Amino acid sequence: MSFTIEFQPMGIRLICNDPLTLLDASRQAGISLRSDCGAAGICGKCIIQIVRSSGEYPSTENERTFLSNKQISDGFHLACETVISDDLKVHVPAESMNTSQVLQVEGNSNVAQPEPLISQKMVKLKEPALNDLLSDLSRLQQTANIFSLDASLEVVRRIPQILRNMNWEANLIVREGELLNVIPHPLSNLLGLAVDVGSTKLAVYLMDLATGEVLAAKGVPNPQIAYGEDIMARLYYALKEKDGASKLHSLLMKSINQVAEELCTRIGNAPTEIVDACLVGNTAMHHFFLDLPIESLAFSPFVPVLSDALDPHSSEIGLASMPGGRVHAPAVIAGFVGSDHLAFLLAEGFGEDGHVRLGIDIGTNTEIALQKGDKVVSVSTASGPAFEGAHIRFGMRAAPGAIEHVKIDQHGKVQTQVIGDQPPVGICGSGILDAVSELRRHHLLNSRGRLDRSASGVQLDERGKPYFSLAGSITLSQIDIDQILLAKGAIRAGIDVLMNYLKVVPNEIEEVLIAGAFGSYMQPDNAIRIGMLPEIPLSRIRAVGNAAGTGARMMLVSKTARKKANALAKRIEYLELTVYPEFPMFYARGIQA
Amino acid sequence: MSFTIEFQPMGIRLICNDPLTLLDASRQAGISLRSDCGAAGICGKCIIQIVRSSGEYPSTENERTFLSNKQISDGFHLACETVISDDLKVHVPAESMNTSQVLQVEGNSNVAQPEPLISQKMVKLKEPALNDLLSDLSRLQQTANIFSLDASLEVVRRIPQILRNMNWEANLIVREGELLNVIPHPLSNLLGLAVDVGSTKLAVYLMDLATGEVLAAKGVPNPQIAYGEDIMARLYYALKEKDGASKLHSLLMKSINQVAEELCTRIGNAPTEIVDACLVGNTAMHHFFLDLPIESLAFSPFVPVLSDALDPHSSEIGLASMPGGRVHAPAVIAGFVGSDHLAFLLAEGFGEDGHVRLGIDIGTNTEIALQKGDKVVSVSTASGPAFEGAHIRFGMRAAPGAIEHVKIDQHGKVQTQVIGDQPPVGICGSGILDAVSELRRHHLLNSRGRLDRSASGVQLDERGKPYFSLAGSITLSQIDIDQILLAKGAIRAGIDVLMNYLKVVPNEIEEVLIAGAFGSYMQPDNAIRIGMLPEIPLSRIRAVGNAAGTGARMMLVSKTARKKANALAKRIEYLELTVYPEFPMFYARGIQA
Repeated sequence: MSFTIEFQPMGIRLICNDPLTLLDASRQAGISLRSDCGAAGICGKCIIQIVRSSGEYPSTENERTFLSNKQISDGFHLACETVISDDLKVHVPAESMNTSQVLQVEGNSNVAQPEPLISQKMVKLKEPALNDLLSDLSRLQQTANIFSLDASLEVVRRIPQILRNMNWEANLIVREGELLNVIPHPLSNLLGLAVDVGSTKLAVYLMDLATGEVLAAKGVPNPQIAYGEDIMARLYYALKEKDGASKLHSLLMKSINQVAEELCTRIGNAPTEIVDACLVGNTAMHHFFLDLPIESLAFSPFVPVLSDALDPHSSEIGLASMPGGRVHAPAVIAGFVGSDHLAFLLAEGFGEDGHVRLGIDIGTNTEIALQKGDKVVSVSTASGPAFEGAHIRFGMRAAPGAIEHVKIDQHGKVQTQVIGDQPPVGICGSGILDAVSELRRHHLLNSRGRLDRSASGVQLDERGKPYFSLAGSITLSQIDIDQILLAKGAIRAGIDVLMNYLKVVPNEIEEVLIAGAFGSYMQPDNAIRIGMLPEIPLSRIRAVGNAAGTGARMMLVSKTARKKANALAKRIEYLELTVYPEFPMFYARGIQA
Repeated sequence: MSFTIEFQPMGIRLICNDPLTLLDASRQAGISLRSDCGAAGICGKCIIQIVRSSGEYPSTENERTFLSNKQISDGFHLACETVISDDLKVHVPAESMNTSQVLQVEGNSNVAQPEPLISQKMVKLKEPALNDLLSDLSRLQQTANIFSLDASLEVVRRIPQILRNMNWEANLIVREGELLNVIPHPLSNLLGLAVDVGSTKLAVYLMDLATGEVLAAKGVPNPQIAYGEDIMARLYYALKEKDGASKLHSLLMKSINQVAEELCTRIGNAPTEIVDACLVGNTAMHHFFLDLPIESLAFSPFVPVLSDALDPHSSEIGLASMPGGRVHAPAVIAGFVGSDHLAFLLAEGFGEDGHVRLGIDIGTNTEIALQKGDKVVSVSTASGPAFEGAHIRFGMRAAPGAIEHVKIDQHGKVQTQVIGDQPPVGICGSGILDAVSELRRHHLLNSRGRLDRSASGVQLDERGKPYFSLAGSITLSQIDIDQILLAKGAIRAGIDVLMNYLKVVPNEIEEVLIAGAFGSYMQPDNAIRIGMLPEIPLSRIRAVGNAAGTGARMMLVSKTARKKANALAKRIEYLELTVYPEFPMFYARGIQA
């Protein structure tokens, strides 16, 4: 059973299937609520107001600490404490939001001022007569006063019947001098679809191109997961199986089309009213959604087939939208730095000023970019899936039952916080990061990354290997810790290479932007303590949520954003770590605890 | 059984199925031989030399009149006297050709200097490496030094495999900044296909784009004839039958594809090596080959759906050529003035100078254009099919057995000339024109168009209607004569309207160009005597053969020709005769004998 959360004043609607906290929901909707404590219920920043609901929401103990009685009776809550499972309308006070995100979502900042490529124009033509013999297309061009209008044969074939059925009135859908379609009536909204095609999750946003508003949004799992957990597994599947690539392409498009249709239905429209689209993703996803051959991505040196932006007809990639419509596929940077990274950098203002700024998107491959002056340099580092919970005995994704935060107090007692406030069943990335950091802080883990077998709390398994108990049966073993140190070492080595290349020292970095879900949950002080990040003042570190989705939405609604993204893509210099002379040294140093 | 005629020095090959004269064959191949007598064997201008043959060609009496013994033993013949039915190689002396045609066919005049849109470029790429990570497409662009190269998703999908299979060498097929295709090896020829899509006949030319040479050519019947003799019948069929239009489109393309394949096979190539195409036709054929809706052409005011030139992908119209290739469909002028008329005017230099020039293409609809200064005005007049032999009791197309010329001597004796030198079975347009003219000259027909019942040679049928015997059982009745007078009246009224509109008197007309087969056989003095043409000195009247095919070939091989055609199309002013005030008066005058 699905339910809908409506966020005001943004007008975003999110459709959910499983119970989740309002904080999680807001993140899925691309709204970045403040959450200084990482959803621990202890900072009191993520205040929202439930304006309308079908269920009951009694206040929690943490809420009573931060909210006045008046606020409680007016429906105010902490978003991180409020688990919802029914239709809800929520008002988000401006002071509860990370400012830059507010602007990006509402689209009224100067970075995403709506400036759509698509426009519509209703025209009333003079009926042809023996003394007025213009062809149908020339008549349209003359009346609409756009003589340079190009039209494909496909759309020309549609014109005569519509004109004659509609008594010589028609609505033109125009994209920068190209006549995309001719339809009987004006569209109430010019709908656009922005999709962040993640390896794990598809974030789909249905937008009003004229206002830049998100009208509805939904996240669904990437259905390709059934054919491989990570990108390499899917590439090998595509190569190994007959029509494997084509099957993975179809699966993806089917899923996007289903969500698009669902979102359209929800707001009373049809997918044929989607007049523009922008799809971003890592380079493998980019090749899958464009149905490009993927052989070259599977083997060294991992070059893309296509790196520049392309605007194919949506029918060429099987996207179900308006006939004649096009889809914008922004540029990719390299085999492991995709258009999602470009979108992230665009959303966070890379290329706009000369500030020293670091952008990190942590995943199985972690993309990192460093800007200094007019230079933007990016790397991709094979950090592996440890922070996504894979290759960790009790590891899991950030989902109900996952330990998302760990604290060890001065008595050695372990405090955990579990998503969904239920008995723990595993531990997710942010919990793993916390755990390692806390073990290190309490010297249960030495600088070489070895658990101290003599310490209390550190136990030995039947083969004599040390492990640490977190909660119930959930433990963290030496092997788990090794995985985590390799992952954070790869990330840190990437950062160090960039700093080395651009001659930047940590204190010069004015801003660190961490994208993705893990970035939102991760405690920056712990990330610094275990050495994943260099020593940068905490106030300069900011989680930016699904910034790739934000960038995709910006490019969807704005010509200028597309131009900026193209210019940024040309400016970004990609460094291949495996041939960077100092990389092995940085990596060796990075994997230390 | 088919046989091939090869014309030198043009290098044109024509494939034929039925016996025909070398004069007819040369016309089908687009070569305009001189024939002042209209193929009567009495002017001695159409001299050619048979260089190689499998059959015997004894000299005829007429040939012995015009040729020396040395010439006869060297294989010289009169083209109009030489009926062939086997493989032949012919040399055409320059002095036997109408000069302007020589230039157009050979493509070395300044009007059709080869200047193709398509070029190919073989590139050898550096293999990607970890320190050289350009995407496949960017690598191609960089190596070929064409960074502005656009490529469709379709061609991008083909690139990686070819590059890797061919050890990073590949041949690019480029069309004005668009990458059409990437193929393993260079093409020996850049082949182009020019097609004049007539209602009756398709004239298909396979050309070398680089040299402008016709490599092979063939004329076949338009297969749509089975669904209607004339355009209106086919339009009504298309409207009446389910999928009728689509069936007529498919039939046409299938036939063009078959001929194209046959011509390619003949020269040892494949249709996938055809990298460009240009199709012209009347507006109905234009809509049929582009698969555009034809409703608007079937009913007054007969407006086209599309009038400007369009360059769809050949796959969009079902033309079997190189994947990724495009086809040029030049502009049409009006519902009954198509791109074949534009091609004719282009080929004859309309729009190039300010000469007063009249162009006429006689058919069921006769298109006429008059140029004066910078004005070019065209009309279409419903002349009906009389000159094509339809609606005439013994009428037939110009084919073996047709009386093509008629003379009545001072004794009232009728002399006829029959195509193929066989007993007559009917009479074709030029014969009909001659007959009416001769009847008028001998006062057997009065100025009101009535046969003189009292004259010798004029007989009465069982219902008392007068008729005139031509040869054997072949007669011309009063009803036939009425049809002819209506046809010539319509043509003359069209000419008169144009002269009236542009204030031109007959003697000002510097050139009269008559296109099409009928124009080639027609005797201009007779056309003037019966009033089809105004009184213009005979020396200014010139038959230009398949000038539409010539124009199509020019546009196929030359960018400049396409530009000129576009400019000419914009300059041509179309006059609708049915609303021209003086038209009824001119028509009433025109139908008099």
